Amino acid sequence: MSDPHETQAHTPVEDSLRLVMDALARHKLVEELVHKQEAAHPELPRHELVESLVHKQNLADLSKKLDGLHPADVAYILEALPLDDRLLVWDLVKAERDGEILLEVSDAVRESLIESMDNRELVAAAAGLDTDEIADLAPDLPKDVVQELMKSLDQAKRAQVESSLSYDEESVGALMDYDFVTIRADVTLEVALRYLRFMGELPPHTDKLFVVERDGKLIGTLPLKRMLVHDPEAHVAAVMSDDPVLFHPSDEAADAAQAFERYDLVTAPVVDAQNRLVGRLTVDVVLDFIREESEQDLLQLAGLREDEDLFTTVWKAAKNRWLWLAINLVTALIASRVVGAFEGSIEKLAALAALMPIVAGMGGNSGNQTSTLVVRGLALGLINKDNARRLLTKELGIALLNGSVWGSVMGVVAYLLYQNLALGGVMATAMLLNLLVAALAGYLAPAVIERTGRDPAFGSAVLTTFITDSMGFFIFLGLATVVLL
Amino acid sequence: MSDPHETQAHTPVEDSLRLVMDALARHKLVEELVHKQEAAHPELPRHELVESLVHKQNLADLSKKLDGLHPADVAYILEALPLDDRLLVWDLVKAERDGEILLEVSDAVRESLIESMDNRELVAAAAGLDTDEIADLAPDLPKDVVQELMKSLDQAKRAQVESSLSYDEESVGALMDYDFVTIRADVTLEVALRYLRFMGELPPHTDKLFVVERDGKLIGTLPLKRMLVHDPEAHVAAVMSDDPVLFHPSDEAADAAQAFERYDLVTAPVVDAQNRLVGRLTVDVVLDFIREESEQDLLQLAGLREDEDLFTTVWKAAKNRWLWLAINLVTALIASRVVGAFEGSIEKLAALAALMPIVAGMGGNSGNQTSTLVVRGLALGLINKDNARRLLTKELGIALLNGSVWGSVMGVVAYLLYQNLALGGVMATAMLLNLLVAALAGYLAPAVIERTGRDPAFGSAVLTTFITDSMGFFIFLGLATVVLL
Repeated sequence: MSDPHETQAHTPVEDSLRLVMDALARHKLVEELVHKQEAAHPELPRHELVESLVHKQNLADLSKKLDGLHPADVAYILEALPLDDRLLVWDLVKAERDGEILLEVSDAVRESLIESMDNRELVAAAAGLDTDEIADLAPDLPKDVVQELMKSLDQAKRAQVESSLSYDEESVGALMDYDFVTIRADVTLEVALRYLRFMGELPPHTDKLFVVERDGKLIGTLPLKRMLVHDPEAHVAAVMSDDPVLFHPSDEAADAAQAFERYDLVTAPVVDAQNRLVGRLTVDVVLDFIREESEQDLLQLAGLREDEDLFTTVWKAAKNRWLWLAINLVTALIASRVVGAFEGSIEKLAALAALMPIVAGMGGNSGNQTSTLVVRGLALGLINKDNARRLLTKELGIALLNGSVWGSVMGVVAYLLYQNLALGGVMATAMLLNLLVAALAGYLAPAVIERTGRDPAFGSAVLTTFITDSMGFFIFLGLATVVLL
Repeated sequence: MSDPHETQAHTPVEDSLRLVMDALARHKLVEELVHKQEAAHPELPRHELVESLVHKQNLADLSKKLDGLHPADVAYILEALPLDDRLLVWDLVKAERDGEILLEVSDAVRESLIESMDNRELVAAAAGLDTDEIADLAPDLPKDVVQELMKSLDQAKRAQVESSLSYDEESVGALMDYDFVTIRADVTLEVALRYLRFMGELPPHTDKLFVVERDGKLIGTLPLKRMLVHDPEAHVAAVMSDDPVLFHPSDEAADAAQAFERYDLVTAPVVDAQNRLVGRLTVDVVLDFIREESEQDLLQLAGLREDEDLFTTVWKAAKNRWLWLAINLVTALIASRVVGAFEGSIEKLAALAALMPIVAGMGGNSGNQTSTLVVRGLALGLINKDNARRLLTKELGIALLNGSVWGSVMGVVAYLLYQNLALGGVMATAMLLNLLVAALAGYLAPAVIERTGRDPAFGSAVLTTFITDSMGFFIFLGLATVVLL
């Protein structure tokens, strides 16, 4: 494997995007001009030669420009282009780079690119990749392409792909690669150095060698840094670190990512239950994982189930968003029935209808502040049964304080608007009570969702808002009915 | 600098937390028992000796346990403990480890720990740190502690701290360290290797040396991997990569983080305008930056301005959340006045009050799906003036589709609930129109906020929801007034 980043100049990628878009615009302009000319003067001979020359030159320049870019930068440009332009650019990319670029684009864009390729091209694109990379790509490829690919691999590599595919997507096994250098403990650093020189090139990110016994059991790691500064006569066993941070393929990727952050790792060995070395985890994969997870959290909060290609079809995007809208329609409908139960009160005092969204809305905002903190605390493992009660007490205390302050403010505003003292009192009391409900809901919702085995980051906001909406309407309209009518 | 992670065993940190909490519980139990004994039998002599022995043994065990943990793990335990327990554990941590642990905890917890220390302890804790780490800590330290610290540094180091402090918090300058190894281009690898061996230890994360000229100008980088596999007789100039990815101190940290992701970097040089080497960026710092940024995004979405210590005081937490609640109170109040304008209609048909939150709520959900995608597209630099119109067209298309589907569903539901065909029609039309408004709002809100120089991730949700709420009420109640009454 080559290390393109080490020789790649740092050209701001936005500039490259602008260049590509300009070239595409010129390309379209020429096409348009020729068409116009044809339409205006159908009697003239077509300047086919001129046309195709200009076109070809333009596209050849563009192709050259793309060749000079890092795969990740080409991927970025493909992400930013509408579908037709994207496929035009994709055609200009050298076929041997297709594989590494497919690895870099988002799932949504990858799908659109793969759709445009035939099986032969797909097999060729994937054949140049490492086994862990093939496994990353495989779920998005047509079945017969995967079969053909597998046939083209030797047995050891096929086993690696199969093993990578067998692990859960969120596990260490799915993220690890097989690109490591092993060494025996009983040789000297001198011998180890000679061995490396003999290899000629080290896998990307290699910051340490893995020290194994004859049966493949891991007994330590040898950082390159130590090889460089220690006496070449020393034995590996004397210089290696014999208690390295290591992972198992079934470990959760999120836990491994946390360990990389905590212990500032660059690479780490992955071993099986018998402590045999089976793979390697590297910081670049961990970095991508962390970024993807956090983006997914943000997208999921808005109910976008999958990463959406910015320029996908209306139909695909709508499907992606339906579940969320459906869930929210149901919760809104239930909250609406709560209001429906008090229609008699609202007929008598329409001010209630104007004020009730404030009670519900403030409860929702306040409740989601609590639930966000609880979701984060759960994710970081900071909340357990010993400190949970303290946390709830604190949140209720904040709700009491905020409910008194903002409830009073709204009570006064309601009184000033409607010159009705009792209405002001109901408003203030309802705000206070709903903020207490919100604290409880924001605290309980994530815990309940986690107990069902789901990700609390996803459902907590809906559940909390549902409770604060319904209860907000109920408390405010109920109090008003009792006190005012 | 030592590299604690390379020799640190991987003990699941949750287990350590449990051990510490158990020890603290035992500690409290003993105290309680002794107090009870005293209260019940004031005539008996106090078993002071026994008591203090048990205490001391318990705490000594705990202290030993903490000594064996990685600083990041101690930090995690401190985060998970309520304030009084936290300070008890903090007292048990060896003073010489205070500095590195303060660097690992969150800002909120750091504040609580620093408050518990006197100036002498703080100076001692910070004195053992690198200059870039001192600069990280300085903003949280009392002024006189910083002054004393600066006095204790030699001139070169003081200049480094001052330079780090002079950069914007979100810039490369604030993240870089000064821990790099430089080499000249005209020496052989053999000489370079001898030089490293002479140094005895390399800074953490060193994966490459920086090749500089006599005047400090950077001319290339020499990856350790290449040093190991190339002929020792070769010159550095022949082996180095002469076009490395590099940064300037004023570059935005977020851009640098993206470059680390794209080009899979472990370390990168930072140079000034004259191309002189001034610092180094490492992947561990970038990883922390990415994690912190994404956490901040999530917290800000819920209106938590700063990271909140889970067990902070009610007063501090309430203040942290006020701005958000105040903003939402104002927007809710304005939306409420829109409803207020239609109180006459609501008096005549109270069903409107029950149905109007559905129109507003669905608009809010749908609008925030659009704004989330736009915010993300803007952050990744994927949206520009050439493709923006296409994006808006797509979003309006989705709104048209979803508005027709869900509007029809709700129209039928409204008809079934109230047996009023016209009401069903108004409901369906209002939903469709508000979803179109939502698409426009979700598309424009982030762009408008970005133009004011603020972070669209923060304000887009409030602004979008404000528009969809107010317009949802207005469209639905307005239509109903015209059509039904």
